[in-house]
Amino acid sequence: MTDQIRAISSPKELRARIREGRFTGPTAGHGGEALQANLVMLRGEDAQEFLRFCQANPRPCPLLAVGEPGDPSLPSLGDIDLRHDVPRYRVWRDGELVGEPTDIADLWTDDMVSFALGCSFSFEDALTRAGIPVRHQDAGRNVPMYRTNLATRPAGRFSGPLVVSLRAMPAADAIEAISICERFPLAHGAPVHIGDPAQIGIEDIHTPDYGDAPDIRPGDIPVFWACGVTPQAAITTAKPALAITHAPGHMLVTDIPSSHAERRLTGVHPA
Amino acid sequence: MTDQIRAISSPKELRARIREGRFTGPTAGHGGEALQANLVMLRGEDAQEFLRFCQANPRPCPLLAVGEPGDPSLPSLGDIDLRHDVPRYRVWRDGELVGEPTDIADLWTDDMVSFALGCSFSFEDALTRAGIPVRHQDAGRNVPMYRTNLATRPAGRFSGPLVVSLRAMPAADAIEAISICERFPLAHGAPVHIGDPAQIGIEDIHTPDYGDAPDIRPGDIPVFWACGVTPQAAITTAKPALAITHAPGHMLVTDIPSSHAERRLTGVHPA
Repeated sequence: MTDQIRAISSPKELRARIREGRFTGPTAGHGGEALQANLVMLRGEDAQEFLRFCQANPRPCPLLAVGEPGDPSLPSLGDIDLRHDVPRYRVWRDGELVGEPTDIADLWTDDMVSFALGCSFSFEDALTRAGIPVRHQDAGRNVPMYRTNLATRPAGRFSGPLVVSLRAMPAADAIEAISICERFPLAHGAPVHIGDPAQIGIEDIHTPDYGDAPDIRPGDIPVFWACGVTPQAAITTAKPALAITHAPGHMLVTDIPSSHAERRLTGVHPA
Repeated sequence: MTDQIRAISSPKELRARIREGRFTGPTAGHGGEALQANLVMLRGEDAQEFLRFCQANPRPCPLLAVGEPGDPSLPSLGDIDLRHDVPRYRVWRDGELVGEPTDIADLWTDDMVSFALGCSFSFEDALTRAGIPVRHQDAGRNVPMYRTNLATRPAGRFSGPLVVSLRAMPAADAIEAISICERFPLAHGAPVHIGDPAQIGIEDIHTPDYGDAPDIRPGDIPVFWACGVTPQAAITTAKPALAITHAPGHMLVTDIPSSHAERRLTGVHPA
């Protein structure tokens, strides 16, 4: 029996329930103020190329932590076992999505390397605290996401379009949002575009490539952030024999406070 | 004989020439990296009300320094004599512009208070260093300025519309410009509006209320900053018996490095 309705504020308790298979839903609203992360796991040479891809593309792929080969823990982010601690995974073979299991212990190998990447939840919390509307949250929808005509910097076989998320808001809020998000380099940082969607290759803003349709009010200006779905687009391009990611919205919940995304985490360890 | 063609990089030398009446032109491009300031001088009760107006409206009126009543020096900004050290002044009586002298020693009174306010030159230098186009500078024109439907916070008789300056640029540059200018609270700080001019009451962006027509390129987004002309608009509303300001573009050149506008100047004195 799962118990996904009531908010679970302790990240340790939440991960324990996930590990036991009692929590398999989206993690938004759970884990209190804990930092949540996008997750990518790759083997051998694929992992080396992807690490270079992240370092070349820090806006869409802000690296929070990289695991040691074959080690499913990420001690700098908490008492984590990546074989069990994400509520739902995605398994990709040769760039094709082949399954969405709730545990990947049977797929773990001794050359697998994990990558935890910052996520927009951190800056959305900061926007909400500043009184800036986050319309998809207010509407209980997923954030709208779009493939753009902006290219990532290739590394090995990893390349592809930058995927962006949209948050529409009044212009004065957009200016404040830019100032706030500049302080969150580990949560995609400042936006990558503002205003005319066509300038970055988005033909119909009302039809996103991922997520739900946007709620755009009169007087709103569209603001676009680099998005953590970008690595999944790069996986479909690179076609590694095996890749494992989190399923959208089903994030890795860490023990790090969300506010830590405001600066580089180097040397920061949870209490 | 004036000698305004060659750039004078030393602020002390520039002020000496201004004091001697040998330099009466605009100060842009002169004084090296020295901070330039808007200047307002008022008497008695008018000065007290204007000080409250500045404190209530820090975006258009960022206070660098306030003089002691009757004292024409501003020691925190340099070896300055405000009766002579601005290349051209404006004299306002009952809110009407009545003259543009190059010296105001004969108008100085023992209850006159001076206000030095931050100026956009500081952040324009920072934008240029970041490779962001400042189109009116490139075209050798004045920045376009507009009265808006945004109201300042009144203080005593001082009130009126916020005046904004426009810099149009590509969206990615606009995002970076917002991040940069956020760091310059003493140079009007972050923009106050971006995108649709009609939202802040600007009907025709090609016909500014002050300055020259804008150079807007395809793909540019308009970005609007609070402007140091706002206090002059407030003077025409308040109609003080006597007010003295700098003439547009003919700024007070200080001994403070321009970079000091990046933080509050409290306690900072020139060497």
